Amino acid sequence: MRQAGRSLPEYRALRERHGFFEIAGTPELCAEVTLQPVRRHGVDAAILFADIMSPVLGMGVDVELVEGVGPVVEKRIDSAASVERLRVAEAEEWAAPILEAVRLVRAELEPERALIGFCGGPFTVAGYLVEGRPSRSFVRTKALMYREPAVWHSLMERLTEQFAHYVAATAEAGADAIQLFDSWVGVLSVEDYEEFVAPYSGRVLESAGVPTVHFGTGASAQLLAAMARAGGSALGVDWRIPLDAAREIVGEDRAVQGNLDPAVLLGPWKRVQAAARDVLSRAGGRPGHVFNLGHGVLPQTDPDVLTRLTELVYGYRHAA
Amino acid sequence: MRQAGRSLPEYRALRERHGFFEIAGTPELCAEVTLQPVRRHGVDAAILFADIMSPVLGMGVDVELVEGVGPVVEKRIDSAASVERLRVAEAEEWAAPILEAVRLVRAELEPERALIGFCGGPFTVAGYLVEGRPSRSFVRTKALMYREPAVWHSLMERLTEQFAHYVAATAEAGADAIQLFDSWVGVLSVEDYEEFVAPYSGRVLESAGVPTVHFGTGASAQLLAAMARAGGSALGVDWRIPLDAAREIVGEDRAVQGNLDPAVLLGPWKRVQAAARDVLSRAGGRPGHVFNLGHGVLPQTDPDVLTRLTELVYGYRHAA
Repeated sequence: MRQAGRSLPEYRALRERHGFFEIAGTPELCAEVTLQPVRRHGVDAAILFADIMSPVLGMGVDVELVEGVGPVVEKRIDSAASVERLRVAEAEEWAAPILEAVRLVRAELEPERALIGFCGGPFTVAGYLVEGRPSRSFVRTKALMYREPAVWHSLMERLTEQFAHYVAATAEAGADAIQLFDSWVGVLSVEDYEEFVAPYSGRVLESAGVPTVHFGTGASAQLLAAMARAGGSALGVDWRIPLDAAREIVGEDRAVQGNLDPAVLLGPWKRVQAAARDVLSRAGGRPGHVFNLGHGVLPQTDPDVLTRLTELVYGYRHAA
Repeated sequence: MRQAGRSLPEYRALRERHGFFEIAGTPELCAEVTLQPVRRHGVDAAILFADIMSPVLGMGVDVELVEGVGPVVEKRIDSAASVERLRVAEAEEWAAPILEAVRLVRAELEPERALIGFCGGPFTVAGYLVEGRPSRSFVRTKALMYREPAVWHSLMERLTEQFAHYVAATAEAGADAIQLFDSWVGVLSVEDYEEFVAPYSGRVLESAGVPTVHFGTGASAQLLAAMARAGGSALGVDWRIPLDAAREIVGEDRAVQGNLDPAVLLGPWKRVQAAARDVLSRAGGRPGHVFNLGHGVLPQTDPDVLTRLTELVYGYRHAA
């Protein structure tokens, strides 16, 4: 899962000397922090170190990552004029260091391990741009959708174009799969999702040209079904839907990824073990399940628990 | 729905002269703001003006309502000792002004209109006490559940006792129904809900002795089913689950309340109309549906839209 680095002392040591976007913009550092969790936990896949706001930095937006808040945007997007200032560009122009990091990681990673590139979902990123910062309700974003649908659609159009270039270039540079993180999509009703979001997410996913994971949190059964219709080789689900229910919604032809609550890892090992076994047993030993947390690794997680969890999952796989 | 006052000029005028807890603590003012939305919109029921933190104020907790943040607790609950400092008391002792307001409202309200009393869900209130403020993830709360279950259960035990006294006294004073607002319960997995929350919510609901509405946001189908098992004459649902799906989950023997997204009211009337009609048509004209928003009224809502919405719903009812 993303943000596994946050719990590692070796990552924190690096972060004391370098800013977030400095690491993301320096191929060697970016490759290093991408590989840290793989080295430590021996997981099957590395996930690229980046931020979901990176592609909009490349569009000329000023973003600051504020500790304890998240991405804060200097100038909110709230009009046709502010959308028009967003520049769409080939990823090679603005994402050269990221793409170089992809090549470095792919060269260093054993062939049997995957490198997962990622991109923010157009709704979640648009929401940050419209709200100016993370929000619990995304009311300003919804108000823009309803009141100025043309502005909303032109914003989504630009983000989609930028993200499509980005995921295609990431795959081209060597990523084996792309995950679309539409983290806050769960605030939407199914109707709003289908009208204002689904076509754009679908286009980004299609542009990857490699297997994709379509991830959201707080998705109801109906929203998960709509996300599956929009696209994705696999659907990533948080801990709110039991994995067997998610498999049923997503259907036989797609994989599921998830879905242990990251907060469970703060509890005693017995609870971690029981919860992980529950996820695995709901997956039913059938192929097409990527074991994962249901959201990012919490910074206060004990890295040893992550290593032990990885071993538990491998043990189950070998036994199955 | 709660917080209808926030959008009204007559409420804002009062709030310029009186603090929130001053209004809640002065029976005449509390009755006045409770009745304002009924007078203006002609809705079927008044909902008592109060805060979900009122009962913990009565337990000796210092709470401040911070603009744009929500309830902020001075001393977080994080240990057995901090739980032991919470005093459980008869509602008549600490809630006398609230109970007097209930009597005033009930006396003034036409007999055919209902007065709904309310209480915070024990999980949501415990979460605010443990986090010290609203949270998107309630990770600290979950960590306490997992690491110190005895502390968690003793906290829930005290809150339950306090809330049970409170809802019984509110009903006794004249409330026709009680709504339990477990707003943030949707952050929990079904297993955690059943282990750490359901029995407590069930006891508070049972203590009311009048019809109850059990409300949460972000509940998956499985969590909604678990909430229904815990209790409630009606289940209140946000806009994430289509109402027909909610009815099916909740079953024939319970009512449903909801579920228009309050953000929709910020859009043009055509959208409001379409969304409200969709809710009504999913309710299928069958009894046992309380039309409502899926969460509190947003402060920036145009009061005239709320009045018009009320008329739309009444028109539908008369036509049905």
